Amino acid sequence: MLQYLSTKEDREAFIDKYDNFLFDCDGVLWEGTNTFDGVAESMTLLREKGKRVFFVTNNSTKSRSSFLKKFEGFGIKAELEEVFSSAFATAAYLKHVLQFPEDKKVYIIGMDGIKDELAAEGIRSCGGEEDAGLTDNDSVPDDKEVGAVVIGLDTKVNYKKYSKAFAYLTRNPGCYFIVTNEDTTFPQHGSFYPGAGAIAAPIIAALGRHPDAVLGKPAQNMLEAIYAESHIDPKKTCMIGDRLDTDIEFGMNGGIDTLCVLTGITTKEQLLSPDNRIRSTYYMDSFGDFSK
Amino acid sequence: MLQYLSTKEDREAFIDKYDNFLFDCDGVLWEGTNTFDGVAESMTLLREKGKRVFFVTNNSTKSRSSFLKKFEGFGIKAELEEVFSSAFATAAYLKHVLQFPEDKKVYIIGMDGIKDELAAEGIRSCGGEEDAGLTDNDSVPDDKEVGAVVIGLDTKVNYKKYSKAFAYLTRNPGCYFIVTNEDTTFPQHGSFYPGAGAIAAPIIAALGRHPDAVLGKPAQNMLEAIYAESHIDPKKTCMIGDRLDTDIEFGMNGGIDTLCVLTGITTKEQLLSPDNRIRSTYYMDSFGDFSK
Repeated sequence: MLQYLSTKEDREAFIDKYDNFLFDCDGVLWEGTNTFDGVAESMTLLREKGKRVFFVTNNSTKSRSSFLKKFEGFGIKAELEEVFSSAFATAAYLKHVLQFPEDKKVYIIGMDGIKDELAAEGIRSCGGEEDAGLTDNDSVPDDKEVGAVVIGLDTKVNYKKYSKAFAYLTRNPGCYFIVTNEDTTFPQHGSFYPGAGAIAAPIIAALGRHPDAVLGKPAQNMLEAIYAESHIDPKKTCMIGDRLDTDIEFGMNGGIDTLCVLTGITTKEQLLSPDNRIRSTYYMDSFGDFSK
Repeated sequence: MLQYLSTKEDREAFIDKYDNFLFDCDGVLWEGTNTFDGVAESMTLLREKGKRVFFVTNNSTKSRSSFLKKFEGFGIKAELEEVFSSAFATAAYLKHVLQFPEDKKVYIIGMDGIKDELAAEGIRSCGGEEDAGLTDNDSVPDDKEVGAVVIGLDTKVNYKKYSKAFAYLTRNPGCYFIVTNEDTTFPQHGSFYPGAGAIAAPIIAALGRHPDAVLGKPAQNMLEAIYAESHIDPKKTCMIGDRLDTDIEFGMNGGIDTLCVLTGITTKEQLLSPDNRIRSTYYMDSFGDFSK
């Protein structure tokens, strides 16, 4: 069942089969500040063949417009409407699903990507990078305006942010608890580091309950948003990712085909292991190989 | 079964029944920097009646000698040999159970209490309060000398500490993962704040596995240490605490009677709820009431 796209013919047949490609970014197009060999050329090839592409990332640290700058820096063409991130999905969820009240604000454990996407939806926020560097353990004053706590990857997290988030969630009745994505690790510096799912764990432990919502893959919110905006045919759509329990499960849950690339989290051994229950439709070494 | 020590006669009969009393500290003797009314007088009463007392605390932020200073400040007599803390138990476990190699060191997420107790056992350490205030997200260099990561309550925790702890645990073969105690919250400033069990949660999530050891209550390490040093009769011993899933479970697991006081975590409603599966032998409003 799991087909290895090993030859140029395999890869061309694969491209011909689909009209739409959804891409995870970290581990597929780039790692940190380095893009993989052949990625820009492969993306150009898809565009030239008239394919539609969407970028579906659990990375909440950047806004959609910041992602565009990153694409541009790598020589990859992309439009704002093609980018779906967990921070964007979180803002959309608060705005459209929860109809977050205008007199409330969001407390953020996370980077500016969350703050910027909330602002783009007209939602006020506090915390985030503003609270980086706090080291005191003083009492947390009440702030009854906080109606939701959103937690994403935060490389400047500290105890004070946890104290505040926990205080608002326990003291403010009905305060929503939202996690952008559940990735427990993410790749950077050629290794793995604690991810958003790890950053949120203290609050889950202290509250003794799970979040009210998790927006990132494998949750279907971003796929539903793409369908709502673009009316693409699921049968002609393939999800390309590097991580089984987010990207590939996201595609499987949505009933679309999947391609696992080996430039990120998942090794060939893990993918092919008899113990692995999440199998993509295809796999290949690197997305950049499409240009070869 | 659960007896309320409501009258002076009840309380005197209770004291007469036991020779040894084990005390939790936070929430029983004090909250933060304030001792409860009558605590010093009640402790003096026990001493005058020739009772033996031991202090058994999951608080890893202070060394045994720092605890003695706190007792002294509240006018409560105590000896170093009477104090058993999760930091002390952690150091003893590394030294005597794991026979931690002399050429290895411990990476600490936690306060100076852990560092001081490790040093008292001749164990080298790094991290802890030294790494407070780090906000960079640079690559974590290898440090093959780290043979154990110990996590306790750390009110100066940050992302860098998590990155380091995760790096050593994944890169250094055989590196031990030890958590001082699993309390997910603790009382301070008249409210609850994230505790050691919450602080350790990101590493548990990122590793996808539980710690190799958890030393604090309800684990039996501190009770075993008391028995080893003091040969007291369990039938004549009572554990006094404020928290059901640590203090009271600790006594129950050790086969000794238990007294729950209502000056800390547990409310009367929680204790008496039909849903509560952890019931102490006795309960009373405040330990200080013994002096009334």
